[in-house]
Amino acid sequence: MEKDQKHRLVDAGALQAFIRSVLRHSGLPEADAGTVAALMAEADLQGSDGHGVIRLPQYHKRLQTGGMNPRPNIRVVTERAAMAVVDGDNGMGHLVMSFAAKLAIEKARTAGVAWVGTRASNHAGPASLYARMPIEHDMIGMYFAVGNANHLPPWGGMEMLLSTNPIAVGIPSGSEPSVVLDMATTVAAYGKVKAKAKRGEAMPEGWMIDRQGRPLLDPTRAHEGFLLPIGGHKGYGLALIVGLLAGTLHGAAMGRDVVDFNQDHVTPTNTGQAILVIDLNAFGAPADFKQAVDKLVRDIHDSERMPGVERIWLPGEQSHARRAEYAAGIPIGATIVDELDQLADRLALEKLVCLTSS
Amino acid sequence: MEKDQKHRLVDAGALQAFIRSVLRHSGLPEADAGTVAALMAEADLQGSDGHGVIRLPQYHKRLQTGGMNPRPNIRVVTERAAMAVVDGDNGMGHLVMSFAAKLAIEKARTAGVAWVGTRASNHAGPASLYARMPIEHDMIGMYFAVGNANHLPPWGGMEMLLSTNPIAVGIPSGSEPSVVLDMATTVAAYGKVKAKAKRGEAMPEGWMIDRQGRPLLDPTRAHEGFLLPIGGHKGYGLALIVGLLAGTLHGAAMGRDVVDFNQDHVTPTNTGQAILVIDLNAFGAPADFKQAVDKLVRDIHDSERMPGVERIWLPGEQSHARRAEYAAGIPIGATIVDELDQLADRLALEKLVCLTSS
Repeated sequence: MEKDQKHRLVDAGALQAFIRSVLRHSGLPEADAGTVAALMAEADLQGSDGHGVIRLPQYHKRLQTGGMNPRPNIRVVTERAAMAVVDGDNGMGHLVMSFAAKLAIEKARTAGVAWVGTRASNHAGPASLYARMPIEHDMIGMYFAVGNANHLPPWGGMEMLLSTNPIAVGIPSGSEPSVVLDMATTVAAYGKVKAKAKRGEAMPEGWMIDRQGRPLLDPTRAHEGFLLPIGGHKGYGLALIVGLLAGTLHGAAMGRDVVDFNQDHVTPTNTGQAILVIDLNAFGAPADFKQAVDKLVRDIHDSERMPGVERIWLPGEQSHARRAEYAAGIPIGATIVDELDQLADRLALEKLVCLTSS
Repeated sequence: MEKDQKHRLVDAGALQAFIRSVLRHSGLPEADAGTVAALMAEADLQGSDGHGVIRLPQYHKRLQTGGMNPRPNIRVVTERAAMAVVDGDNGMGHLVMSFAAKLAIEKARTAGVAWVGTRASNHAGPASLYARMPIEHDMIGMYFAVGNANHLPPWGGMEMLLSTNPIAVGIPSGSEPSVVLDMATTVAAYGKVKAKAKRGEAMPEGWMIDRQGRPLLDPTRAHEGFLLPIGGHKGYGLALIVGLLAGTLHGAAMGRDVVDFNQDHVTPTNTGQAILVIDLNAFGAPADFKQAVDKLVRDIHDSERMPGVERIWLPGEQSHARRAEYAAGIPIGATIVDELDQLADRLALEKLVCLTSS
């Protein structure tokens, strides 16, 4: 949430209640609506505001048009001691991935390590939600997903065959905050480009290029160019590998099969995801590992800084700080609140309760 | 191998025989010397010339000084159905990782997926060697390693607490070459900086920065600066996570414990690595997966190119092409051949047999 935008403060509980009521109205069973609402509110609470309540109108539309199944039969289609493939029956990604993460945690408890993949799933919000789930069980989580719109051509190419396919990893710690990496394989996520356009700002060089390979700085011309992968050909390679691991391996969409869910609200996306869970107990005493992580975190915090740098951040620390800060109220952009109000009116539901406006 | 350097052509078999004789002389048992020599020659054959025979004098030195154990007792210290930790007893990394990869392949055949980590291991050559091992078994390989010298500070920092910690992934295909990603988490590997210095060339902006955060272009001043991670804070996050997964998780060195094996030939490095193996058979018919990979490879190859781009490459294709090209002779830099000749003289061994000089 950019602080210079107009916003309203919303209590996490109120946000969750509003999301739940819209999802109930969209046909989800009570328990499922609660699960998705909790995860969506959690996304906003940690500052992943591109993947939280902002997506609700879009989800609602897909559920209404039949593009997403409100009452899926989520089931295991194949499994072994340390793996499973879950068919999401075109249900909401949050439900499918919660099912997958839970199963992977159970399997890892016995096998030491487990991989659970999904197909016929959907957009599931920020990757870090799922990478973090194993942490409270003294387990490491690693999450891969195929993004829900292709914005990245192969290196040297012009056809957008790849998405920003994210990687997220959650690592348990002791007294320090857990280390949680959540990154797209492009320099900037597409949401950041849209935000620049909204604020009338230019993009920095390195975010996008045009069809001649020249830097593209005007975010309103984003449709004329492509996102750049991190490290050039390396990021392209990572996006491709993540797509193969999360999508192709599970029979989910990849490459030309990926449905742009921002444009198309009807065609099932057949989204693929994967979670790898590693049980620390299989490797030794979890306390020893967590102590070593704490020490590394402190070594990094205390290490010498570049001139002008106030603080060295660990991956996940900013989200951790936001969860504390936003406990008093989550800032939601005023235009988003307006859109949610309109949705509530259309569905004859109570509006989102805001704490303040600013 | 940069084509503008003076080099000699060497037959892969002759290279392997020479490496084996030096390792035998260094105290390795016959079979182990053969295993390491085959992998080191394979590295040169695929063009990973920074990680092949060029390392032999350094390995020899470590074996002579007791910095590396020529006759290790490589053993499993803990295991479950889908995981194991291997103690390498400070043996050569090639041996420890071959042991680990073989074990992971066996476990994945039953459990579907398996993770095997190492500690008390050593530098094992190019990451792709191990990520590729599962491919012939219709399995995916994913390899993480802690690099053997810290060249990377945390983002915003000046203390080099991290190495270029690589990630490699090998994906089976059908009639197309396998997809094999092998990447350091920095924009440039340190070997590339050294190569620029040797040729008297400037580095491009984006490879390194100096202690004020300004671009560093003179490779002879590399010691005054730091490598840059891919995607800025993202690459820093990746390097950190890879180090936690490959090092800390297995009780191996990470952060300030990492020994710079270019400077120090005596202290055991306690190198950590990890291999994750995924058996395609557990997910469905391997032929279906490989067909989907082939289709994706062809879609990428045939997709529209940027002006001036002759060909779009898949990860691993250039190494694949080199293996074919170098079957007629591997180009080894003349200065490296000289160094190997001196080593042979000192040890009273037969010199490396070259096919030609150029």
